[in-house]
Amino acid sequence: MLTVHHLGKSQSERIVWLCEELGIAYTLKRYERAPIMAPAEYKALHPMGIAPVITDKTADGRDLVLGESGAIMDYIIATYGGGRLAPGKDHPDFASYLYWYHFANGTLQPAIMRVLIGGRINPAGDHPANQIGRQRLELVLATIEARLGDADYLAGSAFTAADIMTMFCLTTMRHYHPMDLTSYPHIRAWLARLGQREAYQRAMAKGDPGMELLLS
Amino acid sequence: MLTVHHLGKSQSERIVWLCEELGIAYTLKRYERAPIMAPAEYKALHPMGIAPVITDKTADGRDLVLGESGAIMDYIIATYGGGRLAPGKDHPDFASYLYWYHFANGTLQPAIMRVLIGGRINPAGDHPANQIGRQRLELVLATIEARLGDADYLAGSAFTAADIMTMFCLTTMRHYHPMDLTSYPHIRAWLARLGQREAYQRAMAKGDPGMELLLS
Repeated sequence: MLTVHHLGKSQSERIVWLCEELGIAYTLKRYERAPIMAPAEYKALHPMGIAPVITDKTADGRDLVLGESGAIMDYIIATYGGGRLAPGKDHPDFASYLYWYHFANGTLQPAIMRVLIGGRINPAGDHPANQIGRQRLELVLATIEARLGDADYLAGSAFTAADIMTMFCLTTMRHYHPMDLTSYPHIRAWLARLGQREAYQRAMAKGDPGMELLLS
Repeated sequence: MLTVHHLGKSQSERIVWLCEELGIAYTLKRYERAPIMAPAEYKALHPMGIAPVITDKTADGRDLVLGESGAIMDYIIATYGGGRLAPGKDHPDFASYLYWYHFANGTLQPAIMRVLIGGRINPAGDHPANQIGRQRLELVLATIEARLGDADYLAGSAFTAADIMTMFCLTTMRHYHPMDLTSYPHIRAWLARLGQREAYQRAMAKGDPGMELLLS
């Protein structure tokens, strides 16, 4: 029923990982980039043509095609996960969970893309808008570093979907936009900690076999 | 208790509007840009220094400072709104609500910023990365247009927080990045429809008095 359409080296690794963490039944369908963009077969799945995408049959019998990492993760956690990995409104980590969950694609990923694309347009990187972009990314990384100095996981003491949302941006995304994390020891310790999770290792072996995992 | 720190002409208008729609008690604190960026007083509220920010006293007595539009809206809806404006997991619009709710800051707003910043770095706009950015934004707008041709509101037949998330990007954001919406009649009809809501008018009058509302 639930099918995860995984485009290689993309945000959809989050969805594979989530399913492995939750231990739910799903079908994994892999697609290779051709060579950089998604292949036509993947683009045809959804109007936006970007990863991730899932398909499912809803409880009331409709054929669902769903995009957006955050939407897919909320949907799977609520529908199949019994709310696991997402602290609810009476949990002390509720607000911090929400913050870091939305931060991944609302602030971190756009900050990386801004530097990446600004550097493509102006490789010298000397326009004020390039500089502001780099400063913003440094502030974003410093904010994550400070958080992971205070807590083992982004939401607090427990691993949550906020960690899953964020991991891609600081691992696989570095295949596209290298980032020097030397001065962020708490981030690197967190990457190593998450990288040891069996569900993460299973997900990456299934979704991106042979890909170098950038866990430090 | 709940205080909405509103930076003029910013994403935080969403939070003011949400509070007005829900009819909940809140304190509005306004900040003016100085002249473009947030003033020091606003930046000091939160490590990221960007709008929106709320402060609150949690049920267990902690002082909360929360950023990220999506996180703040989820928090307010769950804590003070009784779940209103957010279709739950048994609602037929659950998945489409989630999609459009996350789409606003996960896809639409980054697509606008990409064109805006790409144009600053290269005003000629003739680099392939500029062109790809414009194509992406056109695809994003066409996807919204198609949705609003099928339904009165983004999630379906009822107004939800997904509409609140998206409105800013296509109204106030056009003060920073003008967009010609002539060829998107369904989007323009939706802007006009939302613009007639009393809660929207109250929110904008309180938060950004005198600002031109770009509702067509």
